[in-house]
Amino acid sequence: MLYLVGLGLGDVKDITVKGLEVVKSCSRVYLEAYTSILTTGGKEALEEYYGRELIIADRDLVELKADEILKEADTSDVAFLVVGDPFGATTHSDLVMRAVHAGISYRVVHNASIMNAVGCCGLQLYSFGETVSIVFWADDWRPESFYDKIKKNRSMGLHSLCLLDIKVKEQSIENLMRGKQVYEPPRFMSVSQAAQQLLDIIQKRREEGEEPGLSEDMVCVGMARVGAEDQMIRTATLRQLGSCDLGPPLHSLIVTGRLHPLEVDMLRLSAAPEALAHLEVMDSSTYTS
Amino acid sequence: MLYLVGLGLGDVKDITVKGLEVVKSCSRVYLEAYTSILTTGGKEALEEYYGRELIIADRDLVELKADEILKEADTSDVAFLVVGDPFGATTHSDLVMRAVHAGISYRVVHNASIMNAVGCCGLQLYSFGETVSIVFWADDWRPESFYDKIKKNRSMGLHSLCLLDIKVKEQSIENLMRGKQVYEPPRFMSVSQAAQQLLDIIQKRREEGEEPGLSEDMVCVGMARVGAEDQMIRTATLRQLGSCDLGPPLHSLIVTGRLHPLEVDMLRLSAAPEALAHLEVMDSSTYTS
Repeated sequence: MLYLVGLGLGDVKDITVKGLEVVKSCSRVYLEAYTSILTTGGKEALEEYYGRELIIADRDLVELKADEILKEADTSDVAFLVVGDPFGATTHSDLVMRAVHAGISYRVVHNASIMNAVGCCGLQLYSFGETVSIVFWADDWRPESFYDKIKKNRSMGLHSLCLLDIKVKEQSIENLMRGKQVYEPPRFMSVSQAAQQLLDIIQKRREEGEEPGLSEDMVCVGMARVGAEDQMIRTATLRQLGSCDLGPPLHSLIVTGRLHPLEVDMLRLSAAPEALAHLEVMDSSTYTS
Repeated sequence: MLYLVGLGLGDVKDITVKGLEVVKSCSRVYLEAYTSILTTGGKEALEEYYGRELIIADRDLVELKADEILKEADTSDVAFLVVGDPFGATTHSDLVMRAVHAGISYRVVHNASIMNAVGCCGLQLYSFGETVSIVFWADDWRPESFYDKIKKNRSMGLHSLCLLDIKVKEQSIENLMRGKQVYEPPRFMSVSQAAQQLLDIIQKRREEGEEPGLSEDMVCVGMARVGAEDQMIRTATLRQLGSCDLGPPLHSLIVTGRLHPLEVDMLRLSAAPEALAHLEVMDSSTYTS
């Protein structure tokens, strides 16, 4: 049996009781280590807590050598641990397909992920539109598709959860071309970097004489380390978030749509004083429609 | 301190290790019992597993007598347990607001909910639009707003997660008018009931000469008891789901939008033979756009 076990939001004790039982009973336990990160302690902390060794599963192992993970899973139990819920990232449905085609049964142990935990800022999960991924820009690659998705959600009064880029075990083009297995340090996009990219697009479109559709004053929510003891939730305008520091990763950004009065009340709890005025305005629904 | 603890998808062992520690250490523990249900065993099973007594929190208690829940939570610890994640339903942000205004700190222990666990059918969470609630029709009340939301999502190529109505501790109009505290048995909308209501609207709109926008042949996914050992996932056309029986609650329905080839591969695992042909068609994206 292949068990896909969600670890939740990153603390060792966020695993479910069911998940912990699976981890303790499996013959091999893999830890997926490229679509998210553990908030506290990493692999060592988990190994100490579980009292057993974990095998790191990086992108190469999962995407190119999945057979290694599935080896003997028809006769023994193998666990594959994923931060968040196992089905947050596409890649893991690929692993499931391989298992099924090899005649191996699988079971999922679910857990919280940012996709549902985001509700703790006070915005209603029902009022979110399509989820958006904001990617790191490079000098010669500055995509704007995420901006247009946010604009579309907002035009329908819906909130946008923006997942922020993670670069783990990336190679520089130079090292890649030389075939050197040297990796860059991991990078995690911060709320301020994401906000800055959005601000850049607003300005660019305005300079090009286009109606940008989004504005520097719209109410956004920056979230960092959701679920951890030191989590931070900051409600502010996009402009303000462009220069905020919410500390260590992981960060997520929400661009609000139409706000329900109860949502406004909850957002006030985490609002920067300068954002309160804009919340009042949002209260009487001045969203783009 | 007020702890809002998510119980996950319904089995006693779906609670997180962190959540279980909270439950064992709090002076009072409430179990929210009207926005969802426990898949297995109910209150008694939880009490036995936790080794302590739980207080049932029905809608009246949470919405009208929240002070009772918050009593002494400034000097001792109180836990409020919710099936799924604590912020799945609006009502609980109301409880948080009351706590904050009374000077009581709160902390959230997150868990899986249908909002993210739905990914286990193989559809990508990023490709879902606004979440839809399908309500029970009455003789004189047949709203269609959920239909139009699904149509809108689908026109953008997005999937629709439809949460199905739950009626717990409802009074008949007769008993309500007589002031009798007699409650109807709980009702949970099944996938076939939800599909039937959608089929009714398609037919009605066609009879009225309108283009219905949705069709009987579109590929849908019926899900029952997600996360439990006896969970069922059935991929089929809407027409087929109109007469399926997926067993005991809770049920959810997904209407698919544009399908990615990897999503098609995953859906095939749960597809009724008659639905396979439609999946092939969907593969080359014949979604409304």
